[in-house]
Amino acid sequence: MFETKTTSVKEVTTATLPSKAYAAQSATSQLAPWHFERRAVGPHDVLIEIRYCGVCHTDIHFLKNDLGMSVYPLVPGHEIVGIVTHAGDHVKKFKQGDVVGVGCLVESCRVCTNCNEGEEQYCLNGAVYTYNGIEKETGNVTYGGYSNQIVVNEDFVLHVSDQLPLNKVAPLLCAGITTYSPLRRWKIGKNHRVAIVGLGGLGHMAIKFAKSFGAEVTLLSTSPSKQKDAQNLGADQFVVTTDETNLQKIAGYFDFILDTVSSAHDLNIYLSMLKTHGTLVCLGIDPEPAQIAMLPVVFTGRTLAGSLIGGIAETQEMLDYCAEKHITCDVEMIDIKEINQAYERMLERDVKYRFVIDMTTL
Amino acid sequence: MFETKTTSVKEVTTATLPSKAYAAQSATSQLAPWHFERRAVGPHDVLIEIRYCGVCHTDIHFLKNDLGMSVYPLVPGHEIVGIVTHAGDHVKKFKQGDVVGVGCLVESCRVCTNCNEGEEQYCLNGAVYTYNGIEKETGNVTYGGYSNQIVVNEDFVLHVSDQLPLNKVAPLLCAGITTYSPLRRWKIGKNHRVAIVGLGGLGHMAIKFAKSFGAEVTLLSTSPSKQKDAQNLGADQFVVTTDETNLQKIAGYFDFILDTVSSAHDLNIYLSMLKTHGTLVCLGIDPEPAQIAMLPVVFTGRTLAGSLIGGIAETQEMLDYCAEKHITCDVEMIDIKEINQAYERMLERDVKYRFVIDMTTL
Repeated sequence: MFETKTTSVKEVTTATLPSKAYAAQSATSQLAPWHFERRAVGPHDVLIEIRYCGVCHTDIHFLKNDLGMSVYPLVPGHEIVGIVTHAGDHVKKFKQGDVVGVGCLVESCRVCTNCNEGEEQYCLNGAVYTYNGIEKETGNVTYGGYSNQIVVNEDFVLHVSDQLPLNKVAPLLCAGITTYSPLRRWKIGKNHRVAIVGLGGLGHMAIKFAKSFGAEVTLLSTSPSKQKDAQNLGADQFVVTTDETNLQKIAGYFDFILDTVSSAHDLNIYLSMLKTHGTLVCLGIDPEPAQIAMLPVVFTGRTLAGSLIGGIAETQEMLDYCAEKHITCDVEMIDIKEINQAYERMLERDVKYRFVIDMTTL
Repeated sequence: MFETKTTSVKEVTTATLPSKAYAAQSATSQLAPWHFERRAVGPHDVLIEIRYCGVCHTDIHFLKNDLGMSVYPLVPGHEIVGIVTHAGDHVKKFKQGDVVGVGCLVESCRVCTNCNEGEEQYCLNGAVYTYNGIEKETGNVTYGGYSNQIVVNEDFVLHVSDQLPLNKVAPLLCAGITTYSPLRRWKIGKNHRVAIVGLGGLGHMAIKFAKSFGAEVTLLSTSPSKQKDAQNLGADQFVVTTDETNLQKIAGYFDFILDTVSSAHDLNIYLSMLKTHGTLVCLGIDPEPAQIAMLPVVFTGRTLAGSLIGGIAETQEMLDYCAEKHITCDVEMIDIKEINQAYERMLERDVKYRFVIDMTTL
């Protein structure tokens, strides 16, 4: 189904691989073409020719060094779909030509409690992120999916069904698993009233998953203009949260709220919408502390929690579920040279709902 | 076993009952003797001669109007143990001479989802608190246990074993159930590492319950002087939280932390001590908002929750459990005239661990 480049086995397994990417050279620079070397393909690695890479809001956080931990040159991208062009000698799960995905993680310690429980994203010794991490094999910085190819240990590579449009699968590797995982953890299904805060890349996937699991789904948004889109995506209700009258109507209404907003905002209004023992799960990585009024939390036995992507096994489960249920992301395709403009539009919330880069344009 | 006063049936069921109490007349006044009328004993009510009343930190919050909702005259007290001196015509569960308890609740709507699930403390139409509530039967303010007697609907009265020292049972009605309920809700038992923050009335009961359920228990305190007491109460470990080195040692260590502190304090240091998916439950009613760093909460999938006392059925379960396991509170007995001095000592954290008023001194 896919045409792949021919590279000699010796070349990819003994020498580093000249690679292309779009990189930022500092917190204030734009993304621009950059050449670098990927590590040679080890016996447990696969070499993946990247076809599509989704654009996550976290990419912008790292580009701008919002979390104070960015290392430059920075090559973002952790929603990767591509084709295996070479599999190391000891690779068991993949072969040349396989359609595969890579998400936010490319390695972990594999020995801690969390790794043993399949929660590599919470690796106690520090999971290796797909970009801006430290590559275990080389000690070098990891570079992400805004690139023509990537070398990844097979245990952090996912099988992707070729029955779904691959560009629409790419964002499942972050936006998909990040919303799927907490909905599964809190066993969301029929008889649950679920609210999703924010209609972006994560929010639109959260609606799809929560509906698919059988819940009654309400989209909470500050923009009245999103009502029709929310309903088209399957939301049963839509509430504009800037209207105080609306908030009174849904006080104490929801069993579970998934907050997908990544910028600073007041969590108390969402907590007040929860039933007794209801749970608000935050997915965004806002560096500012939240101000939480604890008195109403105590008086209603409510819960506030965080959740970070998902483990490798759960990510595979999510991809398989999506293939079975024909769930994909709504995407807007861009060429790699449009990436900086895409970031500007994302900051203005002008995307439905995920930009995906056609990496063949690199 | 107990001598009770003789009152004619007609007198208690047809006319209001002249009663004695210690009351505060304003947010700045001390507690002092006061005379008032209890409602007549209705067909579903019991009249209880109060023998002991525990002194809860919430009593001080209400006396000083810290939550801005106090109504004066205010008669505090919601850790009540006494003897039934009269049971209304339709009362089925109690008879004259029974040893009984009354906690924080004396009525609820009985029809909402939470009441139907036995969680009257979260009554959606507003539970009636034992003091500073609005009495359903009369529309008057409720007056608490710093009093010689109280009239309560039998459904909010608890059976108390006369095999335990009753003065040490009284604080179970609030301090006991408030710590028992979240430990049960989060199914704390063997293989759980539990920390208790603060060694007061709630904290010392939390140690006893968590140990009794089989958990490894650590007391977290700002006072090194509490180490011996914590160990005597059964704590396996004791950590002084003002020492940064200590905090590093227990980072990510606990499955569950029960925070019993009722004054303003930083919750982030406790959140940082939780394992992945660990839970911090706050019991205190500090009116100031907490500043929560959400980034580490997201990156570890941690949970912050609140919990409020317990329902009537669970309170009975707790009292029965305590009778079976011989669990009681460590108390310091006072006469009613010492109550204002006791409040001063409580604010200086000078009590092991609960003042209990001998109400026969009224």
